Formats: sequence, C-alpha cells, structure tokens
Amino acid sequence: MRYINFEEEEAVIPDEFFMNEALKEAHEALKLDEVPIGAVIVHKGRIIGRGHNLTERLSDVTAHAEMQAFTAAANYTGGKYLKDCTLYVTIEPCVMCAGAAFWTQISRIVYGASDPQRGFSRISERIVHPRTEVIFGIKATECGQLVKDFFLRKRNKS
Amino acid sequence: MRYINFEEEEAVIPDEFFMNEALKEAHEALKLDEVPIGAVIVHKGRIIGRGHNLTERLSDVTAHAEMQAFTAAANYTGGKYLKDCTLYVTIEPCVMCAGAAFWTQISRIVYGASDPQRGFSRISERIVHPRTEVIFGIKATECGQLVKDFFLRKRNKS
Repeated sequence: MRYINFEEEEAVIPDEFFMNEALKEAHEALKLDEVPIGAVIVHKGRIIGRGHNLTERLSDVTAHAEMQAFTAAANYTGGKYLKDCTLYVTIEPCVMCAGAAFWTQISRIVYGASDPQRGFSRISERIVHPRTEVIFGIKATECGQLVKDFFLRKRNKS
Repeated sequence: MRYINFEEEEAVIPDEFFMNEALKEAHEALKLDEVPIGAVIVHKGRIIGRGHNLTERLSDVTAHAEMQAFTAAANYTGGKYLKDCTLYVTIEPCVMCAGAAFWTQISRIVYGASDPQRGFSRISERIVHPRTEVIFGIKATECGQLVKDFFLRKRNKS
C-alpha cells in the first residue's frame, strides 16, 4: 500500500479544476445580470477566497471578481499578503486588479481568456509583481464565450 | 448688493482647500498607525466621498485611501461613475488606484506628492482615462513629508 500525504499530493490538482471553480463564480455573476467574471484564490490546494463581479449590484467599479476574492482571502488568512497563493480568474485582470495583485505579492496568476481591450498586459507586463508567475489560456474558450454571449444578449435586447 | 449663486461660485474653491481635506484624512490614518495617505472626492464644490489608508487595520491591500473614497462616493451618488468629480489625494495614486479611477471615468485627479516607487506614472500615463485631467504638486511638500516622517519613525523604532 501507499500512504498519501495530501500536503505533497496537492500540487497535482490541475489548474483546470480551480478554473472551473472560478467559472462557477462567473455563473453566479451571470445570475445577477452582471458581466460574468469569477475568481478564486487557492492556497495549498484549498480555496481561501472566492468572488464574482458585482459592479452593477454594488454600483461600485472596484467590485471586480478579483478584488472581492483578494479581500475574502485576506479575511481568511488574517494577513494582507497572499504569498504561496494562486489567483484563478476567468478573464485577464484589468489594470486595477493586476495592481491589487502586485500589492498582495501573490505567487501565481492563472487566467482564462485574454482581454485585449482592458487587460493589464495591453499597458505593461510590469504591472504584475516580478516574482508573480502568470499563466493564461486555461479554459480560455469557455471563459471568454461566457462574456461574449452576455454582451451579445445585451446588444440584441437594446 | 450682489446675489451669489453658489452653483456658479463653486469653481473658485481652490484645489488647496480640498487637498487640505485630503490631508485631514491622512492624519486620521496616522492616528491608526497607518501609512498616512488621505483622499476626498468632490462634486460641484461638495465632498461626496472621503477615505484614508486602512491596509493594516483591515489586513487588506485594496484598502487604499482612494479605493475607500471611490466606494464612498459611489454609495453617495448611487451610480458607479464619477463624471464631473475630482479626486484629491495626498500621494500619487498607485497602479491599482489609478486603474480604479479609470473605471470611474472621473474628470480630474489632483495629487500632492509624486511617488517615484509606486506611482502609476512610473509604469504608464495610459493607465489613467484619456479624458481625465491630472494635476499634481498641490501641497506636495506637506503631503510627502507626512509619509517620509512616518517611515523615518518606523525605521528608528525597529
């Protein structure tokens, strides 16, 4: 038999699994007629913060999925830094959210679909902390399609 | 005699007046042993949002003075955009806060002291919305000195 040390095994949980959790958050936003973007923050295989876009509901441009997730994770850990954590978010973070990620010193950012209009990388990759690893393209089609369909429905209604 | 229409007169309230209000917020942060940065948001001569840095108190890197002020102003107006508003902040906004200002479509940003380490302009001036006017250097010495003295005291203590 083989003993499994979960602390060692956790690394094998694939990014797709957590991106799927972020997608669940995006669907929560969709239910509220918000732009469907979702995020989770993971530490050692455990989700410690979740968030979905609530800018319309809260009438607050700062209420992006990532910002909610950062605040939730900070509440969970009791500390403001998110070292050894990964942010999973369905769409490329905007400048504000990437700027917030910088302050958290988060270890990894994994995003689904790129955002050529408002993504941070259109301005500068230097917005992200030099020690933060950035991975993108995980479930990109599904993540991107959710937002595209949302705006398509909005345009067809008006 | 002369009737004064406050709606017309308001434009003459000098930026120094509102920067002083932002400085009062910075002093509130200082009382809590937070990095002393303060902000107010002004619409037609009236302060509609105030905020001071609370990152330590809230263990939350997103709790910058400007972010608190944006949220407060949005709560006040009930809308998420801050057109025809001015943000006064004692120190140059960071990337996160300038990115948030972009989303608010705020008309003017007036800041005191520049921040060569973390100010948005070290990355790109394109972070700010193209229709947002940026003015800086208002009460710069006082605004900057407050933060410098804070860190000097911290270093001397440790």
